[in-house]
Amino acid sequence: MAEITAALFFAEMRFDPENPQNPDADRFILSKGHAAPILYAAWAEAGAFDRAELLKLREIGSDLEGHPTPRLPFVDVATGSLGQGVCAAIGCALNARRISSDYRTYVLLGDGETAEGSVWEAANVGSLDKLDNLCAITDVNRLGQSQATMWQHDMAQFERRWTAFGWRAIVIDGHDIAAILDAFDEARKTKGQPTMILARTEKGKGVSFTEGKDGWHGKAMKKDELEKAVAELEQQFVHGVNVNAPDLIRKPESRQRPAETMKPVPPPSYKIGDQVATREAFGDVLAKLAQADPRIVALDADVKNSTYSDRFEKVAPERFYENFIAEQVMVGSAMGLAARGAIPWPSTFACFLYRAADFIRMAAVGGNNIKLDGTHAGVSIGEDGPSQMALEDLAMCGAEPNFTVLYPCDAVSAERLVVLAHQLKGPSYIRISRPKTPVIYPNDETFAIGGLKVLRESAQDEATVIGAGVTVFEALKAYDQLKAAGTPIRVIDLYSVAPVDVKGLVAAARATKGRVITVEDHYATGGVGDAVAEAIADAGFTVHRLAVSEIPRSGKPEELLERFGISASHIVSAVTSMVGTTAVR
Amino acid sequence: MAEITAALFFAEMRFDPENPQNPDADRFILSKGHAAPILYAAWAEAGAFDRAELLKLREIGSDLEGHPTPRLPFVDVATGSLGQGVCAAIGCALNARRISSDYRTYVLLGDGETAEGSVWEAANVGSLDKLDNLCAITDVNRLGQSQATMWQHDMAQFERRWTAFGWRAIVIDGHDIAAILDAFDEARKTKGQPTMILARTEKGKGVSFTEGKDGWHGKAMKKDELEKAVAELEQQFVHGVNVNAPDLIRKPESRQRPAETMKPVPPPSYKIGDQVATREAFGDVLAKLAQADPRIVALDADVKNSTYSDRFEKVAPERFYENFIAEQVMVGSAMGLAARGAIPWPSTFACFLYRAADFIRMAAVGGNNIKLDGTHAGVSIGEDGPSQMALEDLAMCGAEPNFTVLYPCDAVSAERLVVLAHQLKGPSYIRISRPKTPVIYPNDETFAIGGLKVLRESAQDEATVIGAGVTVFEALKAYDQLKAAGTPIRVIDLYSVAPVDVKGLVAAARATKGRVITVEDHYATGGVGDAVAEAIADAGFTVHRLAVSEIPRSGKPEELLERFGISASHIVSAVTSMVGTTAVR
Repeated sequence: MAEITAALFFAEMRFDPENPQNPDADRFILSKGHAAPILYAAWAEAGAFDRAELLKLREIGSDLEGHPTPRLPFVDVATGSLGQGVCAAIGCALNARRISSDYRTYVLLGDGETAEGSVWEAANVGSLDKLDNLCAITDVNRLGQSQATMWQHDMAQFERRWTAFGWRAIVIDGHDIAAILDAFDEARKTKGQPTMILARTEKGKGVSFTEGKDGWHGKAMKKDELEKAVAELEQQFVHGVNVNAPDLIRKPESRQRPAETMKPVPPPSYKIGDQVATREAFGDVLAKLAQADPRIVALDADVKNSTYSDRFEKVAPERFYENFIAEQVMVGSAMGLAARGAIPWPSTFACFLYRAADFIRMAAVGGNNIKLDGTHAGVSIGEDGPSQMALEDLAMCGAEPNFTVLYPCDAVSAERLVVLAHQLKGPSYIRISRPKTPVIYPNDETFAIGGLKVLRESAQDEATVIGAGVTVFEALKAYDQLKAAGTPIRVIDLYSVAPVDVKGLVAAARATKGRVITVEDHYATGGVGDAVAEAIADAGFTVHRLAVSEIPRSGKPEELLERFGISASHIVSAVTSMVGTTAVR
Repeated sequence: MAEITAALFFAEMRFDPENPQNPDADRFILSKGHAAPILYAAWAEAGAFDRAELLKLREIGSDLEGHPTPRLPFVDVATGSLGQGVCAAIGCALNARRISSDYRTYVLLGDGETAEGSVWEAANVGSLDKLDNLCAITDVNRLGQSQATMWQHDMAQFERRWTAFGWRAIVIDGHDIAAILDAFDEARKTKGQPTMILARTEKGKGVSFTEGKDGWHGKAMKKDELEKAVAELEQQFVHGVNVNAPDLIRKPESRQRPAETMKPVPPPSYKIGDQVATREAFGDVLAKLAQADPRIVALDADVKNSTYSDRFEKVAPERFYENFIAEQVMVGSAMGLAARGAIPWPSTFACFLYRAADFIRMAAVGGNNIKLDGTHAGVSIGEDGPSQMALEDLAMCGAEPNFTVLYPCDAVSAERLVVLAHQLKGPSYIRISRPKTPVIYPNDETFAIGGLKVLRESAQDEATVIGAGVTVFEALKAYDQLKAAGTPIRVIDLYSVAPVDVKGLVAAARATKGRVITVEDHYATGGVGDAVAEAIADAGFTVHRLAVSEIPRSGKPEELLERFGISASHIVSAVTSMVGTTAVR
């Protein structure tokens, strides 16, 4: 990789080591994140930081981590989970179009990495979107971590795949600097399609005991091996040529770019009691945001007519990216877009976001400002059955320490929470339901990240019932029945699952004899119940959880809420049985 | 799909409608699970069940769900999350080799579905493994859910991709029965590579107002539309030909297959105090199981030298499947293998299992008997940094109601728990660590699914500290320090995270003044803390959780345990502060 990296940094790319985030600078993503040391060496050589820092590699006090993260100012997305960097590169390339910049995006992959399916999702989207501002390089070094790679040095295998997927494929000797530069040149001249440079290399090149040898992946040399290697390499240097590397760097033209800002978003306009699906409200407010904020982009995976993101497409088709049925590149591309200043809203059925779970994990590692929207959550989708029911999504996003997780129950809260998520800095997830639900909040109601709404309360409340999304309405039904039976309860809409309103929850528990029941259209692990339990544990309160506790099946939504224990009748039973007993210790 | 399905069921496949699980019967997987109604119609026509049942489609009382699940005896894996059935088909085809059967595997994909990266992971593995007993069909009907597909009816786009990936590609008119039969015939004669039949079709064929028209995806006809459609179709029937469909079915040859059974596994042989990584013990016991059970197979994604699954490969190379860096097909293939009676152990770094999260979800839906092993869990991996640290994996697997989740802390428990997981029926996950840890259990120690071990106890214990994996040793260190300071604590190794030993945990809480502390190398959500909190909530006890609560970074393992709040010193502080206060209500 030494030759490829040297060519990129000191001949091909336009960038500013002192301002790596210059909006018109070319991007470089190291998709094979395990090669981090050469990335750090290149930036040090370019003058971005002191070369002495390199010796702190992988130390707890240094940002030069084992794999690159955006803790470093020149890293756009965290890499190290293979096959992701190339998806993020799609997003970087799309952003150049969005801001009308001529910056180019370079991404370096390992050969073994191209076995990951996400690479081929990116390959499809890259050619469909005719991203000729994108140039990928595969370091075909033949050796994976545990053995030789799938296609070893059979370059035709790579070439025919990338060609079939619509890319310009260029096979070169990856140690021939002139060939590398020519390939970059050809890539720059190629119009209407992205380029993949397939560089045949020898791992450990130039050192007699490592060149082309297996068994050196992720392995440090011993001191005597290192001395031998350095001695051998020094013999191969061209001596007597003195260049100051930073002098070779081509900087991007400096351009005035006005700050992109957000205009006010028109408030919701519903009538209390109207039946509106939260996904429909999502589509509507997304379309409003399209007109209020030039940074917003929306990404779909062929379900826009169900998530209603097609309402965004109608008003801003140039900022709507259709990925077809490919959730990994949808989220990966969003990570790249976010890294370049766009505010991306990828949306699909919540269960299919799970296809991109590892991308979501890496977005958390990188702190990328992505706004996930997952619709059709839970058993309340009904007849389509368990394959379409997200029951793990709150756990997936809630587990990430820097994710904000919101869960509206009606159209007004959906619109308001989408705008809040859009304005906050950092990754977030909005959980959206399929069924129509009645509007319960007035249009001017305000919400807060980390807030909750007490929907019913009295000084006599015997228990607190906490719902979210569709179960808020089950809780309200249970309230009516229990009230008629002489047992008043407090009802809470926990629209902010992470962060959660600790004070508000503890206050409710205290005011209702310590009796707390959660009810959620999600499995018991990692959802509303666990969030509430953790929030009130230090105050000494426990939670009785109503959640889906077995693999569900097809049926009508109301039948399923009943069958899987999260309907009003189950809440009534839980409250009744709790009120009839005293807390045991 | 009518013509393709009719040809498959009543001319091509060998199967027994009365015994769909015959080990030598051809397999049919409907990867485009949303086409379930035609699958059900075909099996009804074949005589597997009464045609009147078809009218109960999607009803809560019927197993004819919105998308197929193995609740039906003729369904191997649940489909409906696109791009998965083809991965499972790889596993079915591999199993035919394992049991020396000539059964063939057929899998039907949608065209839109082939945008999923997992399809191309399967494409690679299918050609690498030369699976000529595998025949896939793509129904190229041009219309996705929300719009026309990526490549519409450009059959060359499909053909060049599949050819590039090493498959025999055959393009046909999918409405031409003779062409379909010829293609199946060619596929059967093709040696050394799998076949992809690319069938150009018109969605809604034969009905004037649906044929080739957008807007009918997942949409039921109105009554008058249905009458018109049926009338139009009846005009096109060949009348006067009376065939009894079941008479056309070719049954598999009946063969005697002795039941596959498991021999005893040699016990562990370690010395107390030896430093052994649990991943090494995992590799060793996997190799023992290879010799004890003909059903076991192991699957890797190019990390076998780190997970030590290469020790299995050494003793049973013919049952070891290398998927290279492609976790989705690794898990999907395992699902197919499990459906056919193999007991598959896919293993990789725990963080990279997350790449297959949606496959794991679907394995739970289908109840497939897969045995996941995730190594290098948590911050204790050290310098490689956050991209390589699984901190969500307990939540991922623990959320699924039918998953067993085990977490050994030493080599003896690792060996014992792997054998227990192997013997139980149903999906399971074993969480394994990178560092060497001391052996604490004698070789004859016994463990149980749903058990725990009390490692330290006295009648004076002031608190219970619950660890698992690497944190067990932090808890033991804290015990020594606290004991020296006059504060005895109870220490529990919670090696079974799901199911969890409710009685054992409640007893410990009761015996230690209700003071319970969990400490885990995992994020706070969905891990050990949440599992314990839920287990003891109904008894009125709460949990104080020590868990990783921010995005971690590179560093030495012990530095990271300290920095992220899960080391002995943090346990000592937590106990001290808890003992110094009284529970608040």
